[in-house]
Amino acid sequence: MKTSYTVNELNDILKGEIIGHTTQLIEGPEQLKKAKNNQITFIGSVKYVKLWATSEACAAVVTDNITVEPGENRAIIKVKNADLAMAKILELFNPPSPVFDEDLHPTAVIHDTVKLGNGCIVGANCYIGKNVVLGNNVVLYPNVCVFDDTIIGDNTVVWSGTVIRERCIIGSHCIFHTNVSIGADGFGYRPSDDGRGLMKIPQIGNVIIGDHVEIGANSCVDRAKFSATIIGDGCKIDNLVQIAHNSIMGRSCIMAGHSGLAGSVTLGDGVIIGGSASIKDHTTIHSGATVGAGSGVVGDVAAGATVLGYPAQDSRDMLKQWVALRRLTKK
Amino acid sequence: MKTSYTVNELNDILKGEIIGHTTQLIEGPEQLKKAKNNQITFIGSVKYVKLWATSEACAAVVTDNITVEPGENRAIIKVKNADLAMAKILELFNPPSPVFDEDLHPTAVIHDTVKLGNGCIVGANCYIGKNVVLGNNVVLYPNVCVFDDTIIGDNTVVWSGTVIRERCIIGSHCIFHTNVSIGADGFGYRPSDDGRGLMKIPQIGNVIIGDHVEIGANSCVDRAKFSATIIGDGCKIDNLVQIAHNSIMGRSCIMAGHSGLAGSVTLGDGVIIGGSASIKDHTTIHSGATVGAGSGVVGDVAAGATVLGYPAQDSRDMLKQWVALRRLTKK
Amino acid sequence: MKTSYTVNELNDILKGEIIGHTTQLIEGPEQLKKAKNNQITFIGSVKYVKLWATSEACAAVVTDNITVEPGENRAIIKVKNADLAMAKILELFNPPSPVFDEDLHPTAVIHDTVKLGNGCIVGANCYIGKNVVLGNNVVLYPNVCVFDDTIIGDNTVVWSGTVIRERCIIGSHCIFHTNVSIGADGFGYRPSDDGRGLMKIPQIGNVIIGDHVEIGANSCVDRAKFSATIIGDGCKIDNLVQIAHNSIMGRSCIMAGHSGLAGSVTLGDGVIIGGSASIKDHTTIHSGATVGAGSGVVGDVAAGATVLGYPAQDSRDMLKQWVALRRLTKK
Repeated sequence: MKTSYTVNELNDILKGEIIGHTTQLIEGPEQLKKAKNNQITFIGSVKYVKLWATSEACAAVVTDNITVEPGENRAIIKVKNADLAMAKILELFNPPSPVFDEDLHPTAVIHDTVKLGNGCIVGANCYIGKNVVLGNNVVLYPNVCVFDDTIIGDNTVVWSGTVIRERCIIGSHCIFHTNVSIGADGFGYRPSDDGRGLMKIPQIGNVIIGDHVEIGANSCVDRAKFSATIIGDGCKIDNLVQIAHNSIMGRSCIMAGHSGLAGSVTLGDGVIIGGSASIKDHTTIHSGATVGAGSGVVGDVAAGATVLGYPAQDSRDMLKQWVALRRLTKK
Repeated sequence: MKTSYTVNELNDILKGEIIGHTTQLIEGPEQLKKAKNNQITFIGSVKYVKLWATSEACAAVVTDNITVEPGENRAIIKVKNADLAMAKILELFNPPSPVFDEDLHPTAVIHDTVKLGNGCIVGANCYIGKNVVLGNNVVLYPNVCVFDDTIIGDNTVVWSGTVIRERCIIGSHCIFHTNVSIGADGFGYRPSDDGRGLMKIPQIGNVIIGDHVEIGANSCVDRAKFSATIIGDGCKIDNLVQIAHNSIMGRSCIMAGHSGLAGSVTLGDGVIIGGSASIKDHTTIHSGATVGAGSGVVGDVAAGATVLGYPAQDSRDMLKQWVALRRLTKK
Repeated sequence: MKTSYTVNELNDILKGEIIGHTTQLIEGPEQLKKAKNNQITFIGSVKYVKLWATSEACAAVVTDNITVEPGENRAIIKVKNADLAMAKILELFNPPSPVFDEDLHPTAVIHDTVKLGNGCIVGANCYIGKNVVLGNNVVLYPNVCVFDDTIIGDNTVVWSGTVIRERCIIGSHCIFHTNVSIGADGFGYRPSDDGRGLMKIPQIGNVIIGDHVEIGANSCVDRAKFSATIIGDGCKIDNLVQIAHNSIMGRSCIMAGHSGLAGSVTLGDGVIIGGSASIKDHTTIHSGATVGAGSGVVGDVAAGATVLGYPAQDSRDMLKQWVALRRLTKK
């Protein structure tokens, strides 16, 4: 892997405009204040320009409406979108993932009936139950458990501590981070026959996850009561998120940290759920809608709408109410 | 295990009324839209009746105030309570849990001093510390840790990734889902003697959990500062729930996903805590009370009361306030 | 370890005033109602005095403004601060942590290149990757994973189920409880080039954690997009807390259960974040500020300020608004 680049080589990828010149080879990105002489930094806002003079960075990616003098043996790459350019720089300097001396670690417990695709890696102390099918190039880091009859698609990566319960179907190119729980029982009870307690309702469904889905650390996706809890292709789920039984997410939805879907919620495509927001059971949030951080949604949300607050309402209405409430005490 | 049933056999269990007739054997339940010819479906609301005509299901359980024509070679079972009937159907078709080729997997690390009841199953890569006592038929799925001197009652099932710390007492017929943390230290500090930092207060108590308690994936129950954090018989706790040190829950309480009890909270019997609701430390919520989803409870709640909002108040008052707030901007 | 004490021995440590006398040896602390004859209890509030007469405890630590008659063969230790005295009593009776028959368990998978300090303990089924460096007296309980090139300082304790990803730097005297996730990828995406999906932005930074940091069960600290997510010395983090990529915490901050920092949040020193509170990305909370439980902070908070509510405001303003809202419905 190539680990250092000239400014010209970087600009060949970013397709921006170079101002100034540096002979320094660039070995990674760093923030303005912490950057060393062999690093490139980013200036995406005018307020950070003043830090450039004292930064040790030899180069900077700068949004093209910001004026910065490069200085001696330093270079500026002007781009339309510094965030996008940064993402491309990060792809370039992305260090390799941990590698293992053995593809299938001898301490992994893999049932005889498991079907492993080509190029699979199964780390130390993993457990893989009966009839599990792993596609090609699946990576299970150490201490992962996958239970009976689950299927995992090609190139999916599962980090340590994650547990995938039985009979689930996982797509390809997914990433599940550490300590994720997939397919635990949904939360369902009925009154006992004497009315004095609660009886567990069996949760006999499963979880079906599409392709290119990423699920953050310590998040949970419960199995369905019956039928399936479904996460569509390209959904991105942050840490500590709860997805309850029988919820259905369309394509490319985003759920930020600590957010949650109660049971049987339906999300359309491209729905964005802010951090710590909660969605009531049996509600539908239609495609392209956005739920603000910390909101509590208690009814359906129209396509493309932006809702906020608790109970969540049109975000402009909610903002007006907050202003009105503040005014009450200012009279 | 019997895996298919005639409509008559199902109705012997549901004790409803059959309308129409089908020769088809039923092999499982499914939603109206996804059901195949060998599946039974459910109609619990009039709004779903229209889906029956195009559903492939050969039978449906229908609430008795809903009128549906069975159609050719299809049957309806009319029941008083479709939800309850569904729960019974799910019990019937509940597939067996994962089974293992060996009761005590050779990779499990079980200390010589551990006492195992009859019929225990200890999965791969489990760790069981000194003097742990497991009752009869306890199941530890792979990668579970149970620390020294902990006692677990008969028929309790612990899923992978769950850790139960030392000196805890767990009842019988409990289910702990994946990645649960039982008995981690409570969160307690005192100012250091120089007043410039925080000193850990040892958390020397334990956790005591009753019988028939279910705890959801990635939830936490902290050990007590001293004495015990207590969860009563029959409590049902969802995913990602936090129960802090020295809290005490009565019998048959329900805590939904992302809810939390701060330290030394007391719940009576049959208390219901909605999703993402939080309870302030040292408050008491008396028996039969309900805390609405997303609420923040900052004072005691009377028996049978329903509270809502932040700070939580009588739910009718809170709803009125929300209406009043909305009106402020509509003038 | 000494396991029983006379009242005089305890008072030598507490430096209070003994009233009455007991010949009973004290073997531990317990609550008033549950205490046995060989236990000491606490009375920190007048409302608990009435329980003393029927308590079996042979002794009590009592705040010096509370009047209690000791009774026959019972003693009172009067102190200025019963909470602080209790903390010292708990230190005395703190039982030893679980110990292992072997320092490095034979089932642990430790790469040849790992550097272990003196006195390290590595439990069953741990995984330690390439070039990891553990200082002296580091304890990894069973089923911990530490990935390549991570460094852990002296005397740090890591509980079961916790995963520390590659290239992180962990200080000394830290405690990470069960199922913690350190260094999982931050949550960052960019639109795909065809605008129809989301592309992962590589998260190539790491996590740097100072000394004396405690992190609660099932909490998450994400690695930085680039540069580092930083937690300062002496920070105390409760269970189920989310710390997103590139956040920076100063010294001795406190974050209570279910709270969260979105990306690139900066906390000064001694900041207190209440339970379930959330902080918007790119905001700064200056030193000594307090964020009330359940709040949603959407802008910078001044040093020493106390904010509350959603959107979080000066706590006195917020309380006034809540009063005003309540009055709207009482007219």
